[in-house]
Amino acid sequence: MIKTDILIIGAGPTGLFTVFEAGLLKLKTHLIDALPQPGGQCSEIYPKKPIYDIPAFPEILAGDLVKNLMDQIRPFDPGFTLGERAETLDKQEDGSFIVTTNKGTEHHAPVVVIAGGLGSFEPRKPLIPNIQNFEDRGIAYMIKDPEVYRNKKVVISGGGDSALDWAIYLAEIASEVSLVHRRNEFRGALDSVEKASELAKLGKIQLFTEAEVTALHGKTELEAVIVTHNDKEKGETYVEVDAFIPLFGLSPKLGPIGNWGFEIERNAIKVNNAYDYQTNIPGVYAIGDVNTYPGKLKLILSGFHEAAVMCQSAYQLINPGKRYVMKYTTVGGVEGFDGTKKEAKKEVVQSIMA
Amino acid sequence: MIKTDILIIGAGPTGLFTVFEAGLLKLKTHLIDALPQPGGQCSEIYPKKPIYDIPAFPEILAGDLVKNLMDQIRPFDPGFTLGERAETLDKQEDGSFIVTTNKGTEHHAPVVVIAGGLGSFEPRKPLIPNIQNFEDRGIAYMIKDPEVYRNKKVVISGGGDSALDWAIYLAEIASEVSLVHRRNEFRGALDSVEKASELAKLGKIQLFTEAEVTALHGKTELEAVIVTHNDKEKGETYVEVDAFIPLFGLSPKLGPIGNWGFEIERNAIKVNNAYDYQTNIPGVYAIGDVNTYPGKLKLILSGFHEAAVMCQSAYQLINPGKRYVMKYTTVGGVEGFDGTKKEAKKEVVQSIMA
Repeated sequence: MIKTDILIIGAGPTGLFTVFEAGLLKLKTHLIDALPQPGGQCSEIYPKKPIYDIPAFPEILAGDLVKNLMDQIRPFDPGFTLGERAETLDKQEDGSFIVTTNKGTEHHAPVVVIAGGLGSFEPRKPLIPNIQNFEDRGIAYMIKDPEVYRNKKVVISGGGDSALDWAIYLAEIASEVSLVHRRNEFRGALDSVEKASELAKLGKIQLFTEAEVTALHGKTELEAVIVTHNDKEKGETYVEVDAFIPLFGLSPKLGPIGNWGFEIERNAIKVNNAYDYQTNIPGVYAIGDVNTYPGKLKLILSGFHEAAVMCQSAYQLINPGKRYVMKYTTVGGVEGFDGTKKEAKKEVVQSIMA
Repeated sequence: MIKTDILIIGAGPTGLFTVFEAGLLKLKTHLIDALPQPGGQCSEIYPKKPIYDIPAFPEILAGDLVKNLMDQIRPFDPGFTLGERAETLDKQEDGSFIVTTNKGTEHHAPVVVIAGGLGSFEPRKPLIPNIQNFEDRGIAYMIKDPEVYRNKKVVISGGGDSALDWAIYLAEIASEVSLVHRRNEFRGALDSVEKASELAKLGKIQLFTEAEVTALHGKTELEAVIVTHNDKEKGETYVEVDAFIPLFGLSPKLGPIGNWGFEIERNAIKVNNAYDYQTNIPGVYAIGDVNTYPGKLKLILSGFHEAAVMCQSAYQLINPGKRYVMKYTTVGGVEGFDGTKKEAKKEVVQSIMA
């Protein structure tokens, strides 16, 4: 059984910064994350993407944000249970909690904080009967290796950059590419839209707009899709395929946390933002993108603030009656659990106080 | 008359970041600050001091924090009225405000946000009768140039690092140095306390502990101070001096803002933290260290969050009925008022969406 002061579920930027704020209060932390590495979305989905609204970083790559946070929290020596998903939350008689993962790892703590972000990202699937029968038998919701489509007949559906860009890319290597989109306008970058429409004119992409894939055919493997046109006069088109790739983006799912008894609103956990970001279960907090309250902004910088406020409240829960006087790191420095201490040089402090 | 969308009073880190958050919403900003340069305390009091609790900066000098924020807000081309203090707030019939500085500069905006930090820093003065008569006539509350005390008789009072360090420093150059402290223990760094007590043993510092300066004597210039001992048997000591330097730290003062009609609690402006950090005067917000609410933490990172939330609310006030859909900077980039545009490179975005 892993024991800690604050058990953090989710190791994205908000969860990581919680380690730092807890550490300043001498509280130990342990993080659980379903992903195999810390950083959440920033590491998994867009490590090379610049973020522009982290305060005092005119621009920072998501991966570097995570790296900096890891450096900042290192002195507080957090524990990690990675690659495991928190499955159950059990309140103990003494008010503490045991959280167990899908692999059976048990964690015990007086305070739990959910920093699960938007949850785990899963592809949005179109509502087509028997679609699950063909998953991995001709249907893929994301393209991992485009080479598997070389000389194949491919239908892509969707109207965003992802659908456009892959249609353009596969036009070069697949034997046939069809792009099916419900509307006549694409939401993609202008140059992608132009390129796709040019390839359509050259016959390298077969474009079906104002149309949808409505049925799938095949014995065990997918063999054909039915494209239904909005214009009833056009009716249906039967398209033989080796692969059908619906690209409607990723949709976050709250997962097992959604069944732990929290008040949920629009896939997020309601918290008391007027005070300490505690949920309806006393002792359990929710911070960052996973929570909701009036005026909530799903910004990383808001997660940082919520982490700082939440840790003060947790300190009171863990140390009832003990008064904590907040010290500024600029004045008191940062004392790590690993014996390290960072502080302003004496000369510098003197010149300030004089 | 200077016109803007959001008038920001205070150009410290919170005020500066407000420019960025407002800019994302296409709102123009103008800042007023009594100091001659932006950055507030960070620039004025401790530019060379490291801060350890800015998220994703394991360590950053206060001056560099300001520099980074100035770089980040540059695309939104904020206006500045520097070296002038906001004196009056006048609500207009249409609900907008005119803020006038001590130099008569007028600013007109539909929304005002107070980001005044702890206010302006003023030295804490001991309660000694007629002390103001001797200010600049032997009494100084801070040491700007220690050379003016060469070969002079100096009394310092206070028990912190500042009092200790200056007593040690002046012991070398002044003809006599006395250090008066109410208690027997000093709050200073251990090595400073040891050094001072060593100098006291050598007779280079005259140490009066459990004692206070209670009276001042002199015709026009200060000539002597009376040190009263807690121990009544010891009574009083008459000390001839050229200079008396009380070093009790700096105390922030809210200044004229305190008289604008806000609900004030412990030198801070009460705001509605459960929603948008608005004050009791509709259209006027207060963010950062200047505000207070249950659980308030006077942290720079909290000011950043409050700025982001406050700007969303201001947007609604300025554009009633218009719905703003927040776009992530990672997705939409940052479009400056100066025509600049920062955004993720196309290749990068593709690989994310795929």
